[in-house]
Amino acid sequence: MPLETPPGYHPLDDRLLIPFLAGLPQVSTHLGGQPKDWKATEVGDGNLNLVFLVEGPEGGVCVKQALPYVRLVGEGWPMTLKRAFFEYCYMREQEPHVGSFMPRLYHYDPALYAIVMERLSPHIIMRHGVIAGRRYPRFVEHITDFMARSLFFTSDLAMQAERKKALTALFCENTELCKITEDLIFTEPYCISARNRWTAPQLDAVAAEFRADPELKLAISRLKVKFLSAGEALIHGDLHTGSVMVTDEDTRIIDAEFAFVGPMGFDVGAVIANLLLGYFSQEGHATAEGERDGYEEWLLDATEGVWIRFAEKFLALWREQASGDAYPADLFADPQSREALEEERQRVLRRLYLDTLGFAAAKMIRRILGLAHVIELERIADPDRRALCELRALRMARDLMVNSDRYPAITDVTAGARRMRQRGRGEL
Amino acid sequence: MPLETPPGYHPLDDRLLIPFLAGLPQVSTHLGGQPKDWKATEVGDGNLNLVFLVEGPEGGVCVKQALPYVRLVGEGWPMTLKRAFFEYCYMREQEPHVGSFMPRLYHYDPALYAIVMERLSPHIIMRHGVIAGRRYPRFVEHITDFMARSLFFTSDLAMQAERKKALTALFCENTELCKITEDLIFTEPYCISARNRWTAPQLDAVAAEFRADPELKLAISRLKVKFLSAGEALIHGDLHTGSVMVTDEDTRIIDAEFAFVGPMGFDVGAVIANLLLGYFSQEGHATAEGERDGYEEWLLDATEGVWIRFAEKFLALWREQASGDAYPADLFADPQSREALEEERQRVLRRLYLDTLGFAAAKMIRRILGLAHVIELERIADPDRRALCELRALRMARDLMVNSDRYPAITDVTAGARRMRQRGRGEL
Repeated sequence: MPLETPPGYHPLDDRLLIPFLAGLPQVSTHLGGQPKDWKATEVGDGNLNLVFLVEGPEGGVCVKQALPYVRLVGEGWPMTLKRAFFEYCYMREQEPHVGSFMPRLYHYDPALYAIVMERLSPHIIMRHGVIAGRRYPRFVEHITDFMARSLFFTSDLAMQAERKKALTALFCENTELCKITEDLIFTEPYCISARNRWTAPQLDAVAAEFRADPELKLAISRLKVKFLSAGEALIHGDLHTGSVMVTDEDTRIIDAEFAFVGPMGFDVGAVIANLLLGYFSQEGHATAEGERDGYEEWLLDATEGVWIRFAEKFLALWREQASGDAYPADLFADPQSREALEEERQRVLRRLYLDTLGFAAAKMIRRILGLAHVIELERIADPDRRALCELRALRMARDLMVNSDRYPAITDVTAGARRMRQRGRGEL
Repeated sequence: MPLETPPGYHPLDDRLLIPFLAGLPQVSTHLGGQPKDWKATEVGDGNLNLVFLVEGPEGGVCVKQALPYVRLVGEGWPMTLKRAFFEYCYMREQEPHVGSFMPRLYHYDPALYAIVMERLSPHIIMRHGVIAGRRYPRFVEHITDFMARSLFFTSDLAMQAERKKALTALFCENTELCKITEDLIFTEPYCISARNRWTAPQLDAVAAEFRADPELKLAISRLKVKFLSAGEALIHGDLHTGSVMVTDEDTRIIDAEFAFVGPMGFDVGAVIANLLLGYFSQEGHATAEGERDGYEEWLLDATEGVWIRFAEKFLALWREQASGDAYPADLFADPQSREALEEERQRVLRRLYLDTLGFAAAKMIRRILGLAHVIELERIADPDRRALCELRALRMARDLMVNSDRYPAITDVTAGARRMRQRGRGEL
């Protein structure tokens, strides 16, 4: 039995898609020629949506439509269509700040819950590049521009409270998608849940150990409280390397349906977590001893760069463009107060760094012990080999989350990852 | 020229009030007799509203109607009528938790922005009692019940995220009232502002000193960030002793128009700030040396009781009624995790205590250097005597805010207040 959907909604298909696009003048012009010349292909490999690529004589577009259920699971897991609206709202809100790092937005259809946007080509999902051992020389600069600007400009440092509250209220309605994160990241990996899965029996013991680890469960719960109540900035909410499309020259962020006004460290942590997961997966993809050594180092360099350049850029924005209600300029005009404020900036970034480590760890653990996994690890065919990679990542993550203060600099994180990478099963 | 108001809105007067109430069956029954038997008196002494007491043969009601401007200042300071709606929403939301500590709610009229509620008699505004040196033996138990329950039950400890987000979104619209707090409490007392006033010239030097104090300006700005972004619970937002109506036996909280989902310490801090302001004002009201010594001690006992009993009750609720999304029960079922969670409760309360001290200090300073003052101090006729009381309160508040960690227990706060109380002008 099909799920109930609002009047006017129907899933698009090749037959329905072309007339829909033909009714949008900007899109028609962009595609060129006549609608009969346009060719649509459904390419969605995600869990939640239909995704069509449409090619015309002069250009292409991408159409992303929400389905009323999680595709992976089928109609047994209904999922609000409104997530398409929140993805659109995120893109619209962030466009002035980071438009060049997202697909261009052409149209949002509120009845179809469909976004028409730029078709990215020849971009690929960054995860695939990481599995293939590809370096992206511009990635660190681009993703740190994206994060520093999107987070800064929607925080109280740059925004007046009235605008920020309006933004907060709007995204408070994105409660169902937030709930997925609350359950899948912050809760289920740490208790018995039918949705959890892991490489078994190899990881049975560590999964049981994590479920019985009071320190870890407190640490994840503190992060959950932050996720539930810290309204710091408009975050992407799902900023892993599967939400990043790359070429050597270009970086674009997609899939912002989990967006809401939440803790900034959640976005930065997501990027770092996925670089570290990529790092720990490399041994599983090497076809010869040492083949991936150089690439592993690139991933750790990128990890360091992500924090260092993010922090530099965020601080620079704060120094130069702080027009929000936090730390009012009138209070910090004299030289002594300016100096004190600069020290405060360092302290705030330090707290954000610790949040980032905690959220990064949370995102690593959920990808190994929870419902949704990452292909970097899943595609390691030999389960023993995969489990070894996963176990290293889990041990690293557990320590990062519980003992964040033992990693005062991001180079301590990468050094810790290198040490963990050397451990054999007996030492884990 | 009258301010523009929405269609259907008009300020009530004696002539309009009675027919309005006659149209409300529940209220008519409560008042008894015929509308011609009802007698209305306007008694509003506040800044923002019309307040009518209406007496009928069988009972009385209170009608509170928002005016489109701040009454004290006149039509030069327009103020949204919607604050009446948020006060009503707060009362409706908190009624199941703390109904017996608020006036009973009879009716809300969305066109008139008017609340019809229980007329409290023979209650007086607590500030007047504090000036008169009156003890309220039930106050500590009542106000701590009110705070522990209203804050706990609207926090993530008791609420599901979906409900909490709906509540957050609703009160995000109360942005104009929040802005008053942001400006008058967290900003203006620390810089040059036309709205500031203080006992001059006696306090000119300390006002200038505070405006040039980088540590203090950082501390108040950190508290402001918390006020802007920490969505912990549905707070009253203006919980001073002017929002408390008391008899020896009964305590009722009124005037929740500043309510929003914010930091819990802001409410607890408001109560403590106003007890301490009452304490520091006593010397100004004594008609003979030592006359107020016993009452001063009662105020300090109440200050200690407010924190101690609040913390006990909040912890008890957390242990017994935690059905919210924070610290999920599934993660803390085993004995070791239960023990770890109990330690975490203590840590959370410790952080809330430090927040409370900071917000208390902020509320003390704004009442002496900012726009809105308190009658406990204002009614000290001799400006030198008043300034001495105020200076003690300012010095105490500055240390509380900047050096909160030097006051690890609430008894350190009261001991500090006692020491400050002994200082003469030369030592301040």
